[in-house]
Amino acid sequence: MFFEGSEKKIELQVNCSAVSLRSLPLNFWQQTLSLAGAEILSQLSNQACDAYVLSESSLLVWERKLLLITCGNTRLIDAVNHVIEQIGTEVISSLSYQRKSEFLSHLQASRFEDDVARLRAQLPGTAYRVGHLDNHHHYLFCSEQFVQSDASTCLLMYHIKGELAEYLRCNNQSSDEIRKRLQLERLLPEFDFDDYLFEPCGYSVNGIFEDKFLTIHITPQEHSSYVSIETNLNFLQYSFNIFAELLKILNPSSWDIIGMNMQVNNNDFPCHRRIANCDLQLNPLNEFNYNHYTQADSETLFAEVL
Amino acid sequence: MFFEGSEKKIELQVNCSAVSLRSLPLNFWQQTLSLAGAEILSQLSNQACDAYVLSESSLLVWERKLLLITCGNTRLIDAVNHVIEQIGTEVISSLSYQRKSEFLSHLQASRFEDDVARLRAQLPGTAYRVGHLDNHHHYLFCSEQFVQSDASTCLLMYHIKGELAEYLRCNNQSSDEIRKRLQLERLLPEFDFDDYLFEPCGYSVNGIFEDKFLTIHITPQEHSSYVSIETNLNFLQYSFNIFAELLKILNPSSWDIIGMNMQVNNNDFPCHRRIANCDLQLNPLNEFNYNHYTQADSETLFAEVL
Repeated sequence: MFFEGSEKKIELQVNCSAVSLRSLPLNFWQQTLSLAGAEILSQLSNQACDAYVLSESSLLVWERKLLLITCGNTRLIDAVNHVIEQIGTEVISSLSYQRKSEFLSHLQASRFEDDVARLRAQLPGTAYRVGHLDNHHHYLFCSEQFVQSDASTCLLMYHIKGELAEYLRCNNQSSDEIRKRLQLERLLPEFDFDDYLFEPCGYSVNGIFEDKFLTIHITPQEHSSYVSIETNLNFLQYSFNIFAELLKILNPSSWDIIGMNMQVNNNDFPCHRRIANCDLQLNPLNEFNYNHYTQADSETLFAEVL
Repeated sequence: MFFEGSEKKIELQVNCSAVSLRSLPLNFWQQTLSLAGAEILSQLSNQACDAYVLSESSLLVWERKLLLITCGNTRLIDAVNHVIEQIGTEVISSLSYQRKSEFLSHLQASRFEDDVARLRAQLPGTAYRVGHLDNHHHYLFCSEQFVQSDASTCLLMYHIKGELAEYLRCNNQSSDEIRKRLQLERLLPEFDFDDYLFEPCGYSVNGIFEDKFLTIHITPQEHSSYVSIETNLNFLQYSFNIFAELLKILNPSSWDIIGMNMQVNNNDFPCHRRIANCDLQLNPLNEFNYNHYTQADSETLFAEVL
């Protein structure tokens, strides 16, 4: 029942001399994704953005930006290299690649160091590890760049508990019920949503409104549950903190917040302890931050018989 | 500069029909250890015990018990299988095997599951994982047994800081000075000690008194520092808590306490938060416990450029 929920993520911005990324045909994206071992399951579009739910996470395409997130044992760099070869490096104004430490890293097709060697063959850049090897850690590669990346942030939850976690593991789920319990339509009424329920479990949803997005991927499996939420919402424009709301609903044992040019206030979070933090100035224009939290009480662990 | 400090550990007890394990000749242990990829560097003996400092951790041999701890990329199970073949399974009254989650598990010669498959070919038993895959976790295999294991406990420290940590990373260390700064002779004046300073850094010390032992292994390397302390001391017989004393001296960011039929009081520990705990009844006679702690303040992480 193990599934590697933790993701690899690429964000690529192109300059004005490039063709609109949205003008690239569907079969271009299908072919690109097949190189990574993923496929398109569903599509939602508005005037600014095409959002695809994938067999492993999500692809979002704007005119000048691409965000590709893939989980499982996908080969994201194969897909990225194909895109770079097709559009040319000269039109790329920035590229950032992030990879989370996996639950079972030995099952992955490549290591971060291998991925970076392949990216560097196309674009110069700097690679980092944030966090100790014996705990949650994040790998980051940023191309040399002279533009500011769009502000975005993600919340990664580990070991979800309680009512929704149990529902997500049961036999008779429906995507309507999951969406309702996540309260997405109440929280973000202006958004359109497109979701997908996997067999035997697992749930993905993309939401878009104008050029804003929110994407959630849930791997509910008992001993390795994981939820990722990625968004470019401006938290200051809302009267509530959407991460705090989703933390209350999904009730994880620990969670990480990662921001690019955005800081998330933790005032409304459930009772917690901040374990580790990092602020990293990537270059004069871009700032990365990382915060690792656990629930306030010591977690009682149960031994797993192997 | 990376070295895998985290260890594999085997404890084997034999019954009265076995020959004394101490009667086995030195070249038997040399041959056994060579199968694991380790060698004897130094020896200290008293009436109850032979304690060997190894190129990778320690071997302690009593008349009816063997404790072998090896770090790095050693193949502990190869050594154990050789011992079992030589003495015969019928004289073994208990065998327990523990393995810590490694910093870089993909560099290891085997996975825990492989090790257990080989042990089970010799002795029936139960295997467990305690702790989530995305954080510190410990693997444990216990043979079916009807005797109580000797009480023992270990303290594993991660990311040591401060004066002694810096001294352990400097160029002009001496084992005398490290031993003095660890205050071992002050804390345990009745013990004899035998230590070894590795090049370019790294320190091991075995201490014995009657049938009691304490063994410390220090991997001070900057981004993956690790210290393990294993002992069968009865904490109730001392006016101080030796783990608390060593925590103050080595000042780690996080630490684990693992006990077999022994609980360690955390009252005198430096300011801390207990993050996770587990009490596991292995069988009617034996109890395993695990506690994971971090320092009280959020740790400020520094990105490592790769």
